[in-house]
Amino acid sequence: MAEPGPPPYWVVIFTSLRKGADEAYDETAEHLESFVRDQPGYLGMDSVRGADGLGITVSYWADEASIAAWRRHREHLQAQERGRADWYSRFTVHVGRIERAYGNDRPPA
Amino acid sequence: MAEPGPPPYWVVIFTSLRKGADEAYDETAEHLESFVRDQPGYLGMDSVRGADGLGITVSYWADEASIAAWRRHREHLQAQERGRADWYSRFTVHVGRIERAYGNDRPPA
Repeated sequence: MAEPGPPPYWVVIFTSLRKGADEAYDETAEHLESFVRDQPGYLGMDSVRGADGLGITVSYWADEASIAAWRRHREHLQAQERGRADWYSRFTVHVGRIERAYGNDRPPA
Repeated sequence: MAEPGPPPYWVVIFTSLRKGADEAYDETAEHLESFVRDQPGYLGMDSVRGADGLGITVSYWADEASIAAWRRHREHLQAQERGRADWYSRFTVHVGRIERAYGNDRPPA
């Protein structure tokens, strides 16, 4: 589970409905994961996909500039194109600023 | 997939790791879902749990007051207690303000 540290920081919520299984998707996802971890300002990520094809990926970022840079990353741009064309029947992206965070192992911050 | 309308609005990201199967959990989840839909300021929700027990629930809200009211809702408080005690080995809550939203069926807002 992501541990972005004390707020404020930024979040990108990517919600998507996949069309079906595709080997290239899994390869691309792994490939991108190796890149995103080295991006400046990247603070962590949680990702889940259910049996019905609905998936939510939440990534945390130090600031908006880091998000913009990742959005323009070459391999990520290629993946975004494949996603629109082949992988997702639908997706939404929500970008915002996290103001509070807490959990069962840490008090409200 | 949630359609909260044009930003800004607020978001609660609940990330959790379940201990295992529990019938009472499913009942409570359904029960709460019927309540949350009637909460003032509730704008929609997406929820996914993976086979490994990791789950992400993202709910959208008109403002912080709506989030605070739902957090204090009687049935929700009871569920929060059961969650801490019985259902989750770990969870985190992130609360923030969504500033931008887009998708494959709508332009950047």
